[in-house]
Amino acid sequence: MRILILGAAGMVGHRLVDRLVADGQIAGRPIATLDLFDVVEPTAGQGAQGIAIHRYAGDIADEATVASLVKDKPDLIFHLAAIVSGEAEADFDKGYRINLDGMKHLLEAIRAHDGGYLPRLVFTSSIAVFGAPFEDKISDTFLMAPLTSYGTQKAICELLLADYSRKGFVDGVGIRLPTIVVRPGKPNKAASSFFSGIIREPLAGQDAILPVDDDVRHWMTSPASAVGFLMHAAQMDTSGLGARRSLTMPGLSITVAEMVETLRQVAGDDVAAHVKKVPDATIQGIVAGWARDFDPARATEFGFTADADFADIIRQHIADEAAKAG
Amino acid sequence: MRILILGAAGMVGHRLVDRLVADGQIAGRPIATLDLFDVVEPTAGQGAQGIAIHRYAGDIADEATVASLVKDKPDLIFHLAAIVSGEAEADFDKGYRINLDGMKHLLEAIRAHDGGYLPRLVFTSSIAVFGAPFEDKISDTFLMAPLTSYGTQKAICELLLADYSRKGFVDGVGIRLPTIVVRPGKPNKAASSFFSGIIREPLAGQDAILPVDDDVRHWMTSPASAVGFLMHAAQMDTSGLGARRSLTMPGLSITVAEMVETLRQVAGDDVAAHVKKVPDATIQGIVAGWARDFDPARATEFGFTADADFADIIRQHIADEAAKAG
Repeated sequence: MRILILGAAGMVGHRLVDRLVADGQIAGRPIATLDLFDVVEPTAGQGAQGIAIHRYAGDIADEATVASLVKDKPDLIFHLAAIVSGEAEADFDKGYRINLDGMKHLLEAIRAHDGGYLPRLVFTSSIAVFGAPFEDKISDTFLMAPLTSYGTQKAICELLLADYSRKGFVDGVGIRLPTIVVRPGKPNKAASSFFSGIIREPLAGQDAILPVDDDVRHWMTSPASAVGFLMHAAQMDTSGLGARRSLTMPGLSITVAEMVETLRQVAGDDVAAHVKKVPDATIQGIVAGWARDFDPARATEFGFTADADFADIIRQHIADEAAKAG
Repeated sequence: MRILILGAAGMVGHRLVDRLVADGQIAGRPIATLDLFDVVEPTAGQGAQGIAIHRYAGDIADEATVASLVKDKPDLIFHLAAIVSGEAEADFDKGYRINLDGMKHLLEAIRAHDGGYLPRLVFTSSIAVFGAPFEDKISDTFLMAPLTSYGTQKAICELLLADYSRKGFVDGVGIRLPTIVVRPGKPNKAASSFFSGIIREPLAGQDAILPVDDDVRHWMTSPASAVGFLMHAAQMDTSGLGARRSLTMPGLSITVAEMVETLRQVAGDDVAAHVKKVPDATIQGIVAGWARDFDPARATEFGFTADADFADIIRQHIADEAAKAG
C-alpha cells in the first residue's frame, strides 16, 4: 500500500506518520511507501524499518506539484495541509490559494488518472464550517454558515469532496476536527491558539494569557483522538455515507473555566495560577461566532470515538511531554 | 444608475430587462445604463427610451471578459448566468467552468476595484443546493447537501458570496429560486423541464410527457414571481442578513397530480388529456432527490412574496402567451 500525506510536517501530520510507521499496516494491508509532503520538508518517520519514505517540500497551490504527487497512484491520501484561520483571515488570497486551490488541484489530479483508480481521500475539515447563531447542540443536518474565510474554504472543499465522490472520481471522507487541545510547541496564528496555551504554558511553568470570558464553551479533542479519527476514516466502510461525505467528529464540550479547574485538579493550584485573564476584544469577537456544542450522532454511528474527559486530555499532554524529554 | 445583467438572454433575464425598462428606475434612482451579457447577444430591451443599453456576447468563464464588464463599476449586478442541471451533470468540466469559475471571476473583478466600490450583487442560486433525505418542510437552517454538480456549484457560489460580502468586497444577496413554472418556449436540458411541459404543451394543443409518478411533490414559482424576487433583492435592506446572504425563496408546494387537476379546472378536460404518463427511470431518480416543501420564513421576513396559488400561475402563462400572439 502506498500512502500520500499532504501536510505531513504539521503537528497532526507528524503524529499520523508516527502512528502509520508504528502500525506498519492499515486496513490489513502492509504499508510499502509513504510519500510525505508539506511546505517545508517533513521530518516525520525517521528510522522507519521496511517502509520506503519519500519527503517533498512544495506549494500545494501549484497544480503541477500536486499532479506529480499523485503520479504513482497512492491507494490512500490524507489531505491535512492548510493555513490556519487567523492567517487565512489576514491574507485573503493566500487562504484561498492554499486551502481551496490545493484541494481542487488534488481532486483534479486524481480524476485525471484513467478509469479504475479510486483512492480513499481523507480530508481534514473543521467545525469552522459552522457559524452563529447555532442550535444548542449542533446536529448533523445543521447548515454550514462559516464566519471566517478559513471556514468558507473548508466548507467549499467539503462540497467538492462530496461531488467528486458522488461522480466516482474519488472515495472521499471529510472529518470536521474539533479544536485540538493540547497542541505542543509554541502558540500559532490560529485564533484558537489560547485553548492550548492555557494548559500547555502553565504546565511548563510559564504564564498564559486567557483572552476570553470564563464561560466561553467550545468543542475540543486531543491530538491522539485526531489521529484516531484519521486512521478510522482511512479504513471505514464508506458505502453508507451516501452523498454526505463529511462528518462532525466527536469531542468534548467544555468551558474555559472548566478547563482551568481541571488543570488545577490534575496539576495543582500553583500551575493553574499561571493562567492570567487579559481580555482581547478581537479574539472574543472571533470566538463568539464559534460552535459551543455538537451532537455528532452520525460520526458515532460510523464508529468514530473520542476522549472520555478533559483530565484525560491533560494527562495525555503531560505524558507526551515527558516522553519527549526522555 | 448603471446595471449589469449576466445571463440577460435567458428567460428570466429577458423578463427582468423588460421590467427594468418599463420601470425606468429602481430603488428610487433612474436607470441610466443597462449592460446586458450572455453567451449569445441578448435581445431584450429593444426600443427602450432614455436608457443606454449595451449588449455583449462572451464566455463568463473568461476572466478578462468578466473584468471588462465590471470596468465601469455598475451600481447593481444581477448574476443569472448558468448552465442547467442536466448539462452540468453531463459535462462536469463545463459545469464548473460556467457555474463556478464565472462567479469567482465576477467576485474577483469587483474586489479588484479600489476602495469604496461596493455594488449590490444579486445571485440566482437554486433549491438544488439541498438534497435528500430532507425535513418535511426544509427550514432556513437545513444543511446544503446537493445531489448534483449543478447544486454543488450553486452551493459553493453561495459560500463565496457570503465570504466576499462579510469581508466588505460586495453587497451580496443570493436567492434560491424554486423551479420556475410555466417556462415558455421549448423544453430545455434541465431534468425539471417536464414541470413546465405538462402545462405548456397541453395549452398549445400538444401532448406532453409526464415522466414521474403522480405523487411527486415539488417547490415552484412563476416567471413573474422570479422577476419580483430579483427586483426585491436588488432594493432590500441587506444589513439584517448578517453572514447568511442566501435565502430560499417562497413558492408553492404542489404535486404533479394537483398540477394536472388545476390545469383541468382552468382549461378543461380536453387540454388536461394531453398529459401522457411515460415513466422515465432516469428522471424519476433525479427528481427523487429534490426538495418537496420548504418553510421560507427568512425570505418572508425580509419581504419576499410569491404566487397565491397554482391556478394563478397557469392563468399568468395563458395571458403571457396571448400577449405574445398579440
